[in-house]
Amino acid sequence: MHFLMRGDLSDVQRNGIFVRGEGENFRLTKINCYNSTREIGACDLVIVAIKATSNADLIDLVPSLLHEQTMLLTLQNGLGNDEFLAKHFGAERVLGGLCFIALNKISRTEIERYAYGHIVLGEFGRASQPRTRQVAAEFARAGVTCTISDDLALERWDKLIWNIPFNGLSILAGGIDTAAIIQDKDLRQATLALMDEAITAANKCGHALPSDAWCEHVKRTEKMGAYKPSTLLDWEAGRPLEIEPIWGEPVRRVVAAGGQMPRTEMIYALLKQLDKERRSQ
Amino acid sequence: MHFLMRGDLSDVQRNGIFVRGEGENFRLTKINCYNSTREIGACDLVIVAIKATSNADLIDLVPSLLHEQTMLLTLQNGLGNDEFLAKHFGAERVLGGLCFIALNKISRTEIERYAYGHIVLGEFGRASQPRTRQVAAEFARAGVTCTISDDLALERWDKLIWNIPFNGLSILAGGIDTAAIIQDKDLRQATLALMDEAITAANKCGHALPSDAWCEHVKRTEKMGAYKPSTLLDWEAGRPLEIEPIWGEPVRRVVAAGGQMPRTEMIYALLKQLDKERRSQ
Repeated sequence: MHFLMRGDLSDVQRNGIFVRGEGENFRLTKINCYNSTREIGACDLVIVAIKATSNADLIDLVPSLLHEQTMLLTLQNGLGNDEFLAKHFGAERVLGGLCFIALNKISRTEIERYAYGHIVLGEFGRASQPRTRQVAAEFARAGVTCTISDDLALERWDKLIWNIPFNGLSILAGGIDTAAIIQDKDLRQATLALMDEAITAANKCGHALPSDAWCEHVKRTEKMGAYKPSTLLDWEAGRPLEIEPIWGEPVRRVVAAGGQMPRTEMIYALLKQLDKERRSQ
Repeated sequence: MHFLMRGDLSDVQRNGIFVRGEGENFRLTKINCYNSTREIGACDLVIVAIKATSNADLIDLVPSLLHEQTMLLTLQNGLGNDEFLAKHFGAERVLGGLCFIALNKISRTEIERYAYGHIVLGEFGRASQPRTRQVAAEFARAGVTCTISDDLALERWDKLIWNIPFNGLSILAGGIDTAAIIQDKDLRQATLALMDEAITAANKCGHALPSDAWCEHVKRTEKMGAYKPSTLLDWEAGRPLEIEPIWGEPVRRVVAAGGQMPRTEMIYALLKQLDKERRSQ
């Protein structure tokens, strides 16, 4: 296991990584971390976990990691990341994973983990393969529950049912957590309306999400407690926001399919403006 | 002309009121201002220009101003203010006016006026009356262009076509003016979608706004330059926001009529939450 680190490298080399959470508290000290992919060299599996706003960097970073059979697994949120990797490095290399986790990176060396976590894994543009099961088995061996899906695109839309409302409203409502959103009558209603919009959009794009797909997300969120979506943490830390994969790309796809996402479009326009103002300061 | 002033009284008594604007710069020094409606006594015409968030104060303030024929003219934004006055003081007293102005109160004693301004005047729940023309003539005599409408409710919805998008987006997009909104591709599109939503809602509620009613508003806004909607000024000054008349009441009315305003509902939920957080601080 080799980690490419950029800004965090020297802190992690000095302090390791602390993971805190319900039922577990541990510190990783022996971490193979590098500040260049050339030092790492060719790997069997590359896990892409950078922010989608830095995807352009992958064009330089990835080639040193590739041999003929190297798999590229993106654990990034939203739509468009699988396609980005496929376009630049070949579709047959690409797998995608959805992280149903509640964890926050609260400093360069500290991770806070909440109640649960699992990964859903799939192949880009095709059903699962023997290698998919091998990768899932590796995650399981490391203690991470991992299930396999034969329809990665469907899973991506399913996760958007959560990310579209919570990641957006948490910022636009002034920096509030998921518990505050679902406890407020009007924001809860806005959340449900956005979830419904995402489900309708997925169907319009040919992905058959059931109309009650939002139920599971709401139940899970109610159990999570006061959780800050990753985009809110990015906002609070002054980092660029992953706007295109979560809001921009879904809106573009559904418009191309002849549908619309009126509420999501509003969030998209507002967050883009906020992000632009922030960066121009 | 008698002014009830509350917070501004001593500053205005000391300094008068400055009005600055294209083609005019003047200072009013002789102002009949009072801090109690009892000192003013009964009037023929009461102009209500307080923030709708303080409407409850009117229950105590107004009675001292009334004789049998006293007219109450509300120049407040949005829906519900006419009804409030009608409920408490009698429907036959109530007139409403729409201010198509671009002016900002920038301090307790200073008003900045932009390019143009006129008032549209109407009777609550009925066509114009002889008294309506008398009031309009008074405004004209004071140099304010004033036209009369036989359908006040329609005019109110027409003005919402402007207030719903600009007053909301200017706050939610981080405190930007109307020029910044219409120059940004995505926010301009959000604005047009909200305008369209307001027109459809008006129609659903039985007010026949033409489907191109937004054109005039956009043209006017393009001429206005960098203007800050009143709600943005309220937000920046830490004052409560006029959320119910501009977003809450229209949404409730269209839902009662079997329609919906998905984008407006989003703005409503977000602003309510921001206002609530601000006030709980």
